[in-house]
Amino acid sequence: MIHDFYRAQDLPMVGAQVFIEPGQTDKQVKRWFAAMKECGMKVCRIRMFEAYSKAPDGSWDFFLFDRAFDAAQANDIQVFATIFPDVEGNGIGGFKFPVDDEHEAAIDRFTEALVSHFKNHPALRGWVLINEPGVEGVLPDEPYTRARFAEWKEAHPNPAFTPEGYPNLVTFDKERFLLEYNTWYLARIAEHIRKVDPGHELHVNNHQIFKNIAEYDFPSWRQFLTSLGASAHPSWHFGYFDRRRYTVAMSANCEIIRSGAGDLPWWITELQGGNNTYSAFNAFCPTPSEIAKWLWTGIGQGTKGVIFWSLNPRGVGGEAGEWSLLDMQGELSGRAVAARDSAIALKKNSDLFSSALPAESLISILYTRESLWAEKQVQLGDLSDPLYEGRHEGGVMKSVAAMYDILMENGVKATIGEMSEYNWDEDSYAGLCIILPGQVCIPRRYYDNIRDFVKKGGKLIVEGLSFYYDEYMQNVFGGDFELSDVLGGRIREIYCDKGDRKIRIGGLKMWVHLWDAELLNDASGESLRIIHNKYGRGTVTWVPSMIGLGAIRTGHRRVFSKFMMQELRPITEALPMMFRRRRSGIAVQYLKCDEGYITVVSSSARHRRKVRFLTDMKVRRLIYTISPDGVPGKAKNRKVKVHAGATVVAFWR
Amino acid sequence: MIHDFYRAQDLPMVGAQVFIEPGQTDKQVKRWFAAMKECGMKVCRIRMFEAYSKAPDGSWDFFLFDRAFDAAQANDIQVFATIFPDVEGNGIGGFKFPVDDEHEAAIDRFTEALVSHFKNHPALRGWVLINEPGVEGVLPDEPYTRARFAEWKEAHPNPAFTPEGYPNLVTFDKERFLLEYNTWYLARIAEHIRKVDPGHELHVNNHQIFKNIAEYDFPSWRQFLTSLGASAHPSWHFGYFDRRRYTVAMSANCEIIRSGAGDLPWWITELQGGNNTYSAFNAFCPTPSEIAKWLWTGIGQGTKGVIFWSLNPRGVGGEAGEWSLLDMQGELSGRAVAARDSAIALKKNSDLFSSALPAESLISILYTRESLWAEKQVQLGDLSDPLYEGRHEGGVMKSVAAMYDILMENGVKATIGEMSEYNWDEDSYAGLCIILPGQVCIPRRYYDNIRDFVKKGGKLIVEGLSFYYDEYMQNVFGGDFELSDVLGGRIREIYCDKGDRKIRIGGLKMWVHLWDAELLNDASGESLRIIHNKYGRGTVTWVPSMIGLGAIRTGHRRVFSKFMMQELRPITEALPMMFRRRRSGIAVQYLKCDEGYITVVSSSARHRRKVRFLTDMKVRRLIYTISPDGVPGKAKNRKVKVHAGATVVAFWR
Amino acid sequence: MIHDFYRAQDLPMVGAQVFIEPGQTDKQVKRWFAAMKECGMKVCRIRMFEAYSKAPDGSWDFFLFDRAFDAAQANDIQVFATIFPDVEGNGIGGFKFPVDDEHEAAIDRFTEALVSHFKNHPALRGWVLINEPGVEGVLPDEPYTRARFAEWKEAHPNPAFTPEGYPNLVTFDKERFLLEYNTWYLARIAEHIRKVDPGHELHVNNHQIFKNIAEYDFPSWRQFLTSLGASAHPSWHFGYFDRRRYTVAMSANCEIIRSGAGDLPWWITELQGGNNTYSAFNAFCPTPSEIAKWLWTGIGQGTKGVIFWSLNPRGVGGEAGEWSLLDMQGELSGRAVAARDSAIALKKNSDLFSSALPAESLISILYTRESLWAEKQVQLGDLSDPLYEGRHEGGVMKSVAAMYDILMENGVKATIGEMSEYNWDEDSYAGLCIILPGQVCIPRRYYDNIRDFVKKGGKLIVEGLSFYYDEYMQNVFGGDFELSDVLGGRIREIYCDKGDRKIRIGGLKMWVHLWDAELLNDASGESLRIIHNKYGRGTVTWVPSMIGLGAIRTGHRRVFSKFMMQELRPITEALPMMFRRRRSGIAVQYLKCDEGYITVVSSSARHRRKVRFLTDMKVRRLIYTISPDGVPGKAKNRKVKVHAGATVVAFWR
Repeated sequence: MIHDFYRAQDLPMVGAQVFIEPGQTDKQVKRWFAAMKECGMKVCRIRMFEAYSKAPDGSWDFFLFDRAFDAAQANDIQVFATIFPDVEGNGIGGFKFPVDDEHEAAIDRFTEALVSHFKNHPALRGWVLINEPGVEGVLPDEPYTRARFAEWKEAHPNPAFTPEGYPNLVTFDKERFLLEYNTWYLARIAEHIRKVDPGHELHVNNHQIFKNIAEYDFPSWRQFLTSLGASAHPSWHFGYFDRRRYTVAMSANCEIIRSGAGDLPWWITELQGGNNTYSAFNAFCPTPSEIAKWLWTGIGQGTKGVIFWSLNPRGVGGEAGEWSLLDMQGELSGRAVAARDSAIALKKNSDLFSSALPAESLISILYTRESLWAEKQVQLGDLSDPLYEGRHEGGVMKSVAAMYDILMENGVKATIGEMSEYNWDEDSYAGLCIILPGQVCIPRRYYDNIRDFVKKGGKLIVEGLSFYYDEYMQNVFGGDFELSDVLGGRIREIYCDKGDRKIRIGGLKMWVHLWDAELLNDASGESLRIIHNKYGRGTVTWVPSMIGLGAIRTGHRRVFSKFMMQELRPITEALPMMFRRRRSGIAVQYLKCDEGYITVVSSSARHRRKVRFLTDMKVRRLIYTISPDGVPGKAKNRKVKVHAGATVVAFWR
Repeated sequence: MIHDFYRAQDLPMVGAQVFIEPGQTDKQVKRWFAAMKECGMKVCRIRMFEAYSKAPDGSWDFFLFDRAFDAAQANDIQVFATIFPDVEGNGIGGFKFPVDDEHEAAIDRFTEALVSHFKNHPALRGWVLINEPGVEGVLPDEPYTRARFAEWKEAHPNPAFTPEGYPNLVTFDKERFLLEYNTWYLARIAEHIRKVDPGHELHVNNHQIFKNIAEYDFPSWRQFLTSLGASAHPSWHFGYFDRRRYTVAMSANCEIIRSGAGDLPWWITELQGGNNTYSAFNAFCPTPSEIAKWLWTGIGQGTKGVIFWSLNPRGVGGEAGEWSLLDMQGELSGRAVAARDSAIALKKNSDLFSSALPAESLISILYTRESLWAEKQVQLGDLSDPLYEGRHEGGVMKSVAAMYDILMENGVKATIGEMSEYNWDEDSYAGLCIILPGQVCIPRRYYDNIRDFVKKGGKLIVEGLSFYYDEYMQNVFGGDFELSDVLGGRIREIYCDKGDRKIRIGGLKMWVHLWDAELLNDASGESLRIIHNKYGRGTVTWVPSMIGLGAIRTGHRRVFSKFMMQELRPITEALPMMFRRRRSGIAVQYLKCDEGYITVVSSSARHRRKVRFLTDMKVRRLIYTISPDGVPGKAKNRKVKVHAGATVVAFWR
Repeated sequence: MIHDFYRAQDLPMVGAQVFIEPGQTDKQVKRWFAAMKECGMKVCRIRMFEAYSKAPDGSWDFFLFDRAFDAAQANDIQVFATIFPDVEGNGIGGFKFPVDDEHEAAIDRFTEALVSHFKNHPALRGWVLINEPGVEGVLPDEPYTRARFAEWKEAHPNPAFTPEGYPNLVTFDKERFLLEYNTWYLARIAEHIRKVDPGHELHVNNHQIFKNIAEYDFPSWRQFLTSLGASAHPSWHFGYFDRRRYTVAMSANCEIIRSGAGDLPWWITELQGGNNTYSAFNAFCPTPSEIAKWLWTGIGQGTKGVIFWSLNPRGVGGEAGEWSLLDMQGELSGRAVAARDSAIALKKNSDLFSSALPAESLISILYTRESLWAEKQVQLGDLSDPLYEGRHEGGVMKSVAAMYDILMENGVKATIGEMSEYNWDEDSYAGLCIILPGQVCIPRRYYDNIRDFVKKGGKLIVEGLSFYYDEYMQNVFGGDFELSDVLGGRIREIYCDKGDRKIRIGGLKMWVHLWDAELLNDASGESLRIIHNKYGRGTVTWVPSMIGLGAIRTGHRRVFSKFMMQELRPITEALPMMFRRRRSGIAVQYLKCDEGYITVVSSSARHRRKVRFLTDMKVRRLIYTISPDGVPGKAKNRKVKVHAGATVVAFWR
């Protein structure tokens, strides 16, 4: 049912948030929607401020939003309307949970009024249930949430002992509750809307993904959403990365949302469109090339659309004059032009894109929410000391990104997903690989899945302190490690030292961050830094040292890359295309279409790069190219040339 | 009336705070006042501790202070007495506001007793109403202040919308209240004193000026004060600057107080006289040369006197043994000798100084309190990251200092004042210049003034994000910018990037910090980084990029200086004297006396500098010189030679 | 009486904490005690968790601990049992003070039950009253402590004035109370145990020594303890030092506990035995060579035993899998092997060690608790700025360590003790030296002791701002400094400047951190940076500049060392042995035995060092050697060769 909104031949859409607030003139509003049309945009998002819809008599006056919807309709633009209940201070991020029961009722009333009012407007495409759910792990200290948490705790008493009989010292009550609470509350909104408007799309955009994934249960959300979305603003959300790695972060962010969406379509619901002045953490203004890089990163992963934040700037306050795709005079900025040209390229190549789907990936990088919970639980010491980066909050997800990054530089795409999102029900995993990078806490409920995966022919790569804790934060290496037959051994010792050092692992000298570790090979009895094990029809590689962050932190990626590509060789040989050699700073996406493949090659390198592909196909069409230096990229035969910072989209057959 | 305390022929005075507390002996107290006399000091300041004046029966026993006043009289020294009500902990900074009504009454009783007791003492010169008003923006959370704030808020409701119809999201209630509250409370004290003692001076010393100016309404204070003062301790107050820029900071501090004083006389009421051990933020011990540099910086700006903090050290606690101009044995330190020699030089050259007034400046650097309010409001991100210095608190005043600094290195003095302090009522501004460096928030009530200034022949230089917000923190560049005709264009785009980069602006490659911006020239339709506009009889230069901080942060001052001097050429040609070429690290002050000019040239450079002046005059007299290396500076013909860290005072005709 | 537990011929013991918790199997527990036996361990420590001993009916079930005690007995291992009342969260550090009276009673009941149950077990050696008393200066904000503090304050009113008549502005109420409160509460536990079990040892282990010494009154504890102990985990406790100085820190830690113990025996009750993963501040895994270095550092200072934390890891939570001497599979790690080999060496050389006592030191470095109190009181400014390290918390103890370090690099051992622990009752101090490095607050009650010490022939060296404050934080240099006749002069001026600079002091150019100071020589009237004074039969050297931290911070140790060795020459000539020349990075301990001396030479240097001794003796036996590179150290004639990071223990005669 939910797929009714989408048809196979739909092109990915480009759009923008139109920021509607009092003070704006008719002329301005019309201009904005006309500008969108100029840019080839077919979709927009509008934040439906309750604060700007309140009439003095307690009823609603949606004048501002009616005007905007009508302008949208006039320009053939569909609207995603974000339900935005009034909150103290009219905050930037907005409403997350009701404060108390009265507040809940007030929100319900607003929601009903809003949905009733707009549900028949031809421009309406769907509802965004809430703006950016997720509280970065901080439970609101308010009556409504306190009451729900109290009930939850009563229903979920903690046993005094772990199943193995150890004292149950650590509880993840808050985290487990938040996971359910978020889901429950979103479902509640969805249900509320559905009563009034059974027909339109229901969507949610998730932000600050590298932290907030710890509180998102995407598979459960699929029950009530029609599509899932990402809010991806490097200046707010990519603090784990520097600017030269924003494309890697964007790509990883898309993978996470895509995996979360499952069979649902997914969007980049917010993509930074303009400058920061005083807002955001790592303020900057994206270049047109960056805008294009990130937009095509999404398209290359099969997004149904990219909506920039925002078309026009807010007028007042800490974000006044910021984020805008249009310039201060309402004209198209260079960024808007890049978006427009991308939309044109999509349309022009609709023969290809209407059938395009992300190419199947054989490699899955999995994380667990529990690893993020455990990591956060144990924070200690000087958290600003970069020499301990790996054990600070973020170490878990930075390990994921390290792995993802190194594969992509080889032209090999991995997916990234929460362990619960993986399809554990296949009959055979031959030709597939799972990578667990630095996943310090893996619940025992997955042990059988993992065993099964290997038994049925999968390739498992275990890096860093993966498996260290179970879901009770019990260390599993000390006793009889249940998976030692699968992994081929046991941990003898882990050695911590701040910073990074070079360690011989197997035949290679690799840089290791923070922890290196010694294994006991059960078969040979040897003490080693790496075990290669065969189990069932599958194989396992286990390196309990932190080689991912070691390589990324030190910049010595070569050996790490060599190691990973060696390990993956049997898998990657089945890929229709990859790079001949690692190309540092190059990101790639693959779309499969009816007759061939589309590649999105984008560069964060400082110099021009030639990317030679290992494939039977050849470039047949140059779809889009943009470059900071203005020199168009080239794609010919089996080679793509990208200038520093550039993007080249090409079709292969 | 208020000028009765001062006669034109009064020489600037040198003095010190005598710290009076129990435990001190007759001999010590006598020695201190005798030492002051030795140093040529004619004025002192005494903190009148209520805590040390309380008799067990609830009455007052001013024995300690009687003894000090008598010693002052015996040594021909006038006393500024600071009213210092008892406060919890006997704090270093002391009392700011009453805690509650009872406290207010108690303070009134003490004030009355104190003023009555000393008003007829011949040594009394005046009262300091309070020590260092100003709370760095933090409203005291106590009944008295809470009640006043509640009343104020009731009387000043916030409109729901800005005059332009935008939502009124940001309120500066706290800031606006504090501004009035400070003024109201100081006026209240003044009135209270005046009832008992209608005759003596009333003074207030303002500290932490680069932050606290946000809460000082100096023009209003002129109604009840007879003079205004500065507390200027580099170790407490100049944290925005490093030690090599303390003289620039001191000079700017003096400008700000001088501008605030208007027609009133002004003092350096506190100048760091000695060492820090554990107190203060950036602890250090000034050298004799620094003492002289700062003292003469004040004199060169026409101060009526410089009072060191302090002559003698406190006995007990976190400041015990610190700040003293005398050494631990009560003898003159090198710093005291520098002060003494300066006092001697003043006396010896009384023919010049008795008629000396600060030379008129043609250039005014203006700041707005609202820029500091807005900047503080929006603080976000990692506030310790130096790459974002310009958008952290302090960016606004550092931009002011950058501009002031670069002009002074060219021997060109600008004044620094709050926008409300400028004289907007002139008939012509020909030959005058206003600079607005990085003033991100300029209230609309000044728009007409600014327009008028240019129309009447003034030269306006607008740098950085000046004008970005109005007083509602509404971005004014987005709509129809009211001043676009005056400024000659509009902002197209602002680009943020952390750190500093080189940008071509007009014909020059300049270093820009954080924000560079593109303008739309209304006349030509061109996109530019700079606009030169003619409006009325005046001209405007608009560079919306942050070139001041860019130059200062990177140390690449040359091009920035070249640019500014180019822009100012028609103005500076009218100056009686300036440097032939920029001399880095050199500060200068100009006094005009009956027959010529006095220059104070002081060096923070690492090496000896020859400063050649562009002037018709020649050096006629070397008034004072001090140098860290002991080699006296020279002044001859049109040239002043200053050794590293030295000061040279000379008379020109 | 208390010495009954120890016989002269007792060898120092090696042991470990066995961590007992639910979930462990019989097999595991047996294995652990067997492993201890394998390692030559004769003693262990067990944390007696109330939480794991509670039966559902409110009675006690000590099954887990019975099993452990029996296993200990079976392996001939004595047990120190730590009383560990149940606390919220089962914290890592554990219980410090009762929350309220009910809690106190509950603890009493548990203590009684526990002690009664185990007092007759043959494996019991003694009770550890509490784990790691000390709260780093933070008074628990709970009814029990609040009530005691209120009582205390009533009994200890603060005078309004200091004895010299100055206002009494600073109170150390909290600090003084905590000192007595800790003592009182430990005595209360001891008394409680003694009622039930009059016979076994009573012990306490003190942690975070460089901060917590401010709240330990060791001399008073001697009344109720039979031995004193140190918890010394570099990763938790040596944050003032980097890893290359951990051996210096360990040695200083031992000195402090040894001085505190007085005539009592002392232990290293906890020594880091293994890896950190997420716990501790500066996480790392000690190498086998470090394990040996620190173990022998203790032995070389006469410890009665070294107990590693821990033998086996905790199962669950933030320390799960950490700290262990055994590897994850329960086998001996390299660290365990180093401990075992050390135990074997002790046993093999029992002829020497059974009579060995720490060689008498002629030099005492004294600190005062009040210096730590004062230093903490005055913290201000940017506490992360390394250029102000000396005035941040820790400056006082880092000055102590600087002095200790430089002497040890010359093969000269000083003791470190609180001023109250020094024996001020001798008839003569000829040949003895006291060093006061940076002791900013020295109570006047010690003035006569210090005067007496010099008068009776002692050598006093005063460095940095020692004596600056008295116990009221009154600066004593300003008035008539009472000790000026002893020290030979007065302070003229102190000069603060951030960072470090080179200053000529006497004939040497030394690096000074933060403060340099000028003295007035009373005899000559000269202004100097150093005074050498004769007083009575003794002599004094006074350098009020911070030369210790200056040398250590900059790494320019040579001149500082030269200076100190010059000053100490008459003293060190009496030493039976020292180094011929300073050997950087080398630590040494001396034990005197019946027929000669044992040296423990250990290296933190990067390269091999030859250490030549100045002595009449020669090496007779190589007792123990370990080296990271596996090449054994050598000891021959008067020379010891240590490889980088190695330890060499030798016997001399």
